[in-house]
Amino acid sequence: MQPRTLFEQEIREQPQVLRSLLRDSREALAEITEAISRYGPRFVVIAARGSSDNAARYAQYLFGEGLGWTVALAAPSLVSVYGAKPSMEGALVIGVSQSGQSPDIIAVVDEGRRQGAFTLALTNEPDSPLASAATHTLALGAGKERAVAASKTYLAQLGAFAALCAGLGADPGRRQALEQIPEALEQTLALGEKARELALRWKDKEQVIVLGRGFNYATAFETALKLKETCYLLAQPYSSADFLHGPVAIVEARTPVLLIAPTSKVSAEAHKMLELLAAKNADCWCITDDATLGGRAHGTFVLPAGIPEWLSPLVAMVPGQLLALESALVRGHNPDAPRGLHKITRTR
Amino acid sequence: MQPRTLFEQEIREQPQVLRSLLRDSREALAEITEAISRYGPRFVVIAARGSSDNAARYAQYLFGEGLGWTVALAAPSLVSVYGAKPSMEGALVIGVSQSGQSPDIIAVVDEGRRQGAFTLALTNEPDSPLASAATHTLALGAGKERAVAASKTYLAQLGAFAALCAGLGADPGRRQALEQIPEALEQTLALGEKARELALRWKDKEQVIVLGRGFNYATAFETALKLKETCYLLAQPYSSADFLHGPVAIVEARTPVLLIAPTSKVSAEAHKMLELLAAKNADCWCITDDATLGGRAHGTFVLPAGIPEWLSPLVAMVPGQLLALESALVRGHNPDAPRGLHKITRTR
Repeated sequence: MQPRTLFEQEIREQPQVLRSLLRDSREALAEITEAISRYGPRFVVIAARGSSDNAARYAQYLFGEGLGWTVALAAPSLVSVYGAKPSMEGALVIGVSQSGQSPDIIAVVDEGRRQGAFTLALTNEPDSPLASAATHTLALGAGKERAVAASKTYLAQLGAFAALCAGLGADPGRRQALEQIPEALEQTLALGEKARELALRWKDKEQVIVLGRGFNYATAFETALKLKETCYLLAQPYSSADFLHGPVAIVEARTPVLLIAPTSKVSAEAHKMLELLAAKNADCWCITDDATLGGRAHGTFVLPAGIPEWLSPLVAMVPGQLLALESALVRGHNPDAPRGLHKITRTR
Repeated sequence: MQPRTLFEQEIREQPQVLRSLLRDSREALAEITEAISRYGPRFVVIAARGSSDNAARYAQYLFGEGLGWTVALAAPSLVSVYGAKPSMEGALVIGVSQSGQSPDIIAVVDEGRRQGAFTLALTNEPDSPLASAATHTLALGAGKERAVAASKTYLAQLGAFAALCAGLGADPGRRQALEQIPEALEQTLALGEKARELALRWKDKEQVIVLGRGFNYATAFETALKLKETCYLLAQPYSSADFLHGPVAIVEARTPVLLIAPTSKVSAEAHKMLELLAAKNADCWCITDDATLGGRAHGTFVLPAGIPEWLSPLVAMVPGQLLALESALVRGHNPDAPRGLHKITRTR
């Protein structure tokens, strides 16, 4: 079937994008990981906005769990607006931006470099100002992204972070596991019909709650962002732990909830959360490879089995992309060009 | 007038809570700031959830701008669930929790202490497990908070962070400016009628967008959380910069928007944001001391003039508390005991 929109086409390109990234970045990656290892960062600062900031959330878990690094998600306006010079001495400073154009992200990297920190740009545009600002650049090579809502560049950012973590860690099995993900992405792309079913079911809903925890906290944010961008849905992302600290009060009967819960160290919580939501009669759908969990939800996007938790965000975000696509089409919106958005957002 | 609910009573206690905190914590504060100065942190890690996490967002700007420190907001589950040991060598590790009970927050402080970092507990319960875990404790002394939704303990957390920053910085004018805030809080508490007016206007709305940037990014999050907790409103907080990177697509005619914009270094953006929202016919209300901005909105909560930006979050959050209170009453909810919430949430 021909893709109906650019957004769909770019979603479908993702297995190939990751294959190319893993193949073409080998040399750059080896050089960068060696230089970082030599440097030995005391902590990490990541500057990003929008989808890129969601990739940064993933990196916070990835680097914390896999490498024992503390990651600070920068408040970019501190540097660009307030002229602050937060100390980044000994830090690894990473700027993440699809376009490499946003002045506030560039300002953080500039300041890091001025302070002598190790600076790295993760961008799809290796000739961008962000790449010039950093001493090292890892090009995403995702090809031009034409739909306004990011899909393949988000996947490429996750893939680049995962490849960095695998290259910097001691376990060679990590890289091998990452090499399996393009195949798993192919399988996950087959969930389009399920996404259509849910898009029709929730056609008249104006709100949806998206829950994820741990590594998939990022996935909850990215899924909600896609639904907001393409369908103008009030999609609200939460860590399931934060959700219990207040927002759970908003759930009532038939509230649409998307629970992103691949098998993980937080699986027990996901089961409890599902029970709580069931008791409130919420309309809870799961994104999981856990058949028991899936069997208790109103519906399930079944993920491929056997994906390690640290890589699960690379596949667990696909159902949300497909749901955003189908929901936009079902509601008569053009997912390629949401109202009021531009591909490059320049914030200071 | 007698307070109608515990939540209202505690909101009204805030000027006194801050006066007591500033008076009673002098000695502890002097000792803690001296110890921190001697230690000389390389960076800061703050562990918190819910309202306390919003106070941590404020501290990220406060410490970044005022002291040149990079602040990482911890992902608490990294330690408590994943057993990760993110490096906190040389860090100042602060655990913030009203009750001092949440195991995940305690786990981060425990791990920091194990690594030899400087650990500090900010809590209303100086006999709590969190206080025992940290080497230093700054007691909030806000008195027992009986409404489930936090108000005076949030104010006390902001006040404690502001007092820390004033004590650690070189400018003696900062402490003097902080001493003026209880009086400004008294003035802001007079905005109850305006809150009633807006609560009636938005009585049937199910969603509201709350925007803030820079120091008041935290205020946007806390205001949205109050509206969610007490009125089950789908209140969504955004940095106005992030908002332009996607979510702005959801705004349409009559969408309720609360723009928190005291006079600040981001005032120019607030003016532009208001223009954009006006062009989309959103129902935009401002929380500001800027008469020009206020004059262009559909309605305004007028803040006291002359409050420096770094202290503005201590007063700019009051209108949101009053709006949450009045909205709950107008909608027939009990703001003291929201459904599905407990005062102490224990997440791992």
